[in-house]
Amino acid sequence: MDYMKEAIRCHKEWNGKLETVPKMKIETKDDLSVAYTPGVAAPCLEIAKDPALSYTYTGRSNTVAVISDGSAVLGLGNIGGLAGMPVMEGKCVLFKALSGLNAIPLCLNTQDTDEIVKIVQALEPSFGGINLEDIAAPRCFEVEARLKETMQIPVFHDDQHGTAIVVCAALVNALKIVKKDDPTIVINGAGSAGCAIAKLILDMGLGQVILLNSKGILHEGMKLSSMQKQLMPRINPNHIQGGLKEAIADADVFIGVSVGHILTKEMVQTMHEDAIVLAMANPIPEIEPEQALAGGARIVGTGRSDHPNQINNLLAFPGIFKGAMDVRARCINEPMKQAAVMAIASLVKEEQLNEQHIIASALDAGVADVVAKAVGKAAIDSGVCGE
Amino acid sequence: MDYMKEAIRCHKEWNGKLETVPKMKIETKDDLSVAYTPGVAAPCLEIAKDPALSYTYTGRSNTVAVISDGSAVLGLGNIGGLAGMPVMEGKCVLFKALSGLNAIPLCLNTQDTDEIVKIVQALEPSFGGINLEDIAAPRCFEVEARLKETMQIPVFHDDQHGTAIVVCAALVNALKIVKKDDPTIVINGAGSAGCAIAKLILDMGLGQVILLNSKGILHEGMKLSSMQKQLMPRINPNHIQGGLKEAIADADVFIGVSVGHILTKEMVQTMHEDAIVLAMANPIPEIEPEQALAGGARIVGTGRSDHPNQINNLLAFPGIFKGAMDVRARCINEPMKQAAVMAIASLVKEEQLNEQHIIASALDAGVADVVAKAVGKAAIDSGVCGE
Repeated sequence: MDYMKEAIRCHKEWNGKLETVPKMKIETKDDLSVAYTPGVAAPCLEIAKDPALSYTYTGRSNTVAVISDGSAVLGLGNIGGLAGMPVMEGKCVLFKALSGLNAIPLCLNTQDTDEIVKIVQALEPSFGGINLEDIAAPRCFEVEARLKETMQIPVFHDDQHGTAIVVCAALVNALKIVKKDDPTIVINGAGSAGCAIAKLILDMGLGQVILLNSKGILHEGMKLSSMQKQLMPRINPNHIQGGLKEAIADADVFIGVSVGHILTKEMVQTMHEDAIVLAMANPIPEIEPEQALAGGARIVGTGRSDHPNQINNLLAFPGIFKGAMDVRARCINEPMKQAAVMAIASLVKEEQLNEQHIIASALDAGVADVVAKAVGKAAIDSGVCGE
Repeated sequence: MDYMKEAIRCHKEWNGKLETVPKMKIETKDDLSVAYTPGVAAPCLEIAKDPALSYTYTGRSNTVAVISDGSAVLGLGNIGGLAGMPVMEGKCVLFKALSGLNAIPLCLNTQDTDEIVKIVQALEPSFGGINLEDIAAPRCFEVEARLKETMQIPVFHDDQHGTAIVVCAALVNALKIVKKDDPTIVINGAGSAGCAIAKLILDMGLGQVILLNSKGILHEGMKLSSMQKQLMPRINPNHIQGGLKEAIADADVFIGVSVGHILTKEMVQTMHEDAIVLAMANPIPEIEPEQALAGGARIVGTGRSDHPNQINNLLAFPGIFKGAMDVRARCINEPMKQAAVMAIASLVKEEQLNEQHIIASALDAGVADVVAKAVGKAAIDSGVCGE
């Protein structure tokens, strides 16, 4: 199927991928008087007395906002909020299809950090969770940090943490197959996703990390973002210098969140035995899977659905939000993210694990429930629920 | 039925009155690849090339935002965005039920004019129309004016214009029954709705207007809002002074958008023969219908569904937005509002008109279509459609 052509045809027919559908009929005056005036005054007054009742009398407990400024949409870059809307609608479709949560796409026509922060803060009464999406680094770090500090509902930048969680779940399982416990992991791409992956790998003790941006291996002499600066003391313990070629030699794992076709077969040949290559660039991966295998990689994953081992955010965000919102967590913290990693990894039973099957399919039944349960438990255990 | 009790029970059960439902199934990898990556990139790129295609490839052409700061919710006053949410959800339910348009409730936790303006402006890529709701005067005037000036989609403060349109439609029909063509009309309440009603009556040449606020008949010595100042040269041509008692003597029409039980039977007795009383305060009207009739009024309408002649915004906003959005109008202008008045009035055929039936029921089939058709035509005729 030519997905592009089919997408154009379908999007034209759909004319928007979502409908907002009332849960009740409005056919009689009584229907009106209960769902609207005068009856609706009663739940309003209850919430005015006790704000926590907004979770009972409105859709907050099951409604997420998917918010983007359109500055880093998929692999398309800064196409703006208007052009990013089909992606945000798609994300909302997936929220509903995979977790049952309602999700509202909100694309902004500002890319100003202060304005984005103010807008999202002001929308807090309308939502139970905020999924930030496709916001460029380093703006995304500041936006998320400021929102997490000031809001009482979960705020989650999926491009950072969703990606990090699913990559780490795939990595956990791949490392089981190759039986390595302190691998050297090269992450190519030091934007929002790359930094979040590095941090989560280090927090979970999954291996040593070398992080590169388009100028080469990160070092103190470079212009670094605040997120990169925070990571510096924890990465590249052997002080390797140079570019991808130097970084990849003798590495155990390659994780790409960068651009297509940047990793060559020859580079893979210089990696340690039983190399793991997770080439996530979308839609063109850092190396085509057949090239990676030809270079000697044992396990290859990509972000694409037409190759084995699709490392897909869909495995994470529906269950993470559902878990957090089910227990009314005030945030999505580190223990909750790590619980999500282990829950997603656990979806592939040990006896099913093999080189072509390191990660579950996002469309498998019950994925979100398993993740939600683990995340909800971690939220309760870490004390971020309730009033 | 005890609507308050029933509303509490139902709102608890509903846990939010809306669901966001995908228009397509997500069951296979192909489904994913068309509605989401990689296929979704195609409509994104098309919109990036031609922004007008957002109306084809996203839900903009059929999605309205219902936005409130919770500062003037129903008769409840400034209960804030969080507590106002059940009303905004209800409004969205009505949009869908009556016009088929999707509507998203957005309650803000700011009541700062500049912030509200910036937030709504920033949301333009996500919506095809903005319904401002329950924002207190005079803030609502400035918010609406600034948004209309800067946005390329219809912005409509329903409490002002929706109310004005439906009141004028009822008035047009009531005046047909009593056969008066230059009545003196007393409007009690000079906030957002009162001013909008006065302006629309004058623009349409329906009669002379005397406007009062809680301090009495408006005069130059009072502290006046900018909207009130604009109206001053057009109202109270006979320079009547005093309060409601003085204003109502010899008047033909009373329109109340103020507070309950402020108009007495004795005051109605001082009105001209064949008096018309439209007492819109909600939930308690300015005078109970039986009192108005006992005072000699010939026609009485209220905002309530349990009395005859319910003057209900529901008659206006679904069709107005549908009409404007169907023809992709850039705004909702005066000709469109006046077309809506005449279309709503026309819903009651001359031979059906009587004292107990001056206005159609909002739940009659086809109301929104009739209004939409008239509004769409007025938009095209007044040149506010297209690129």
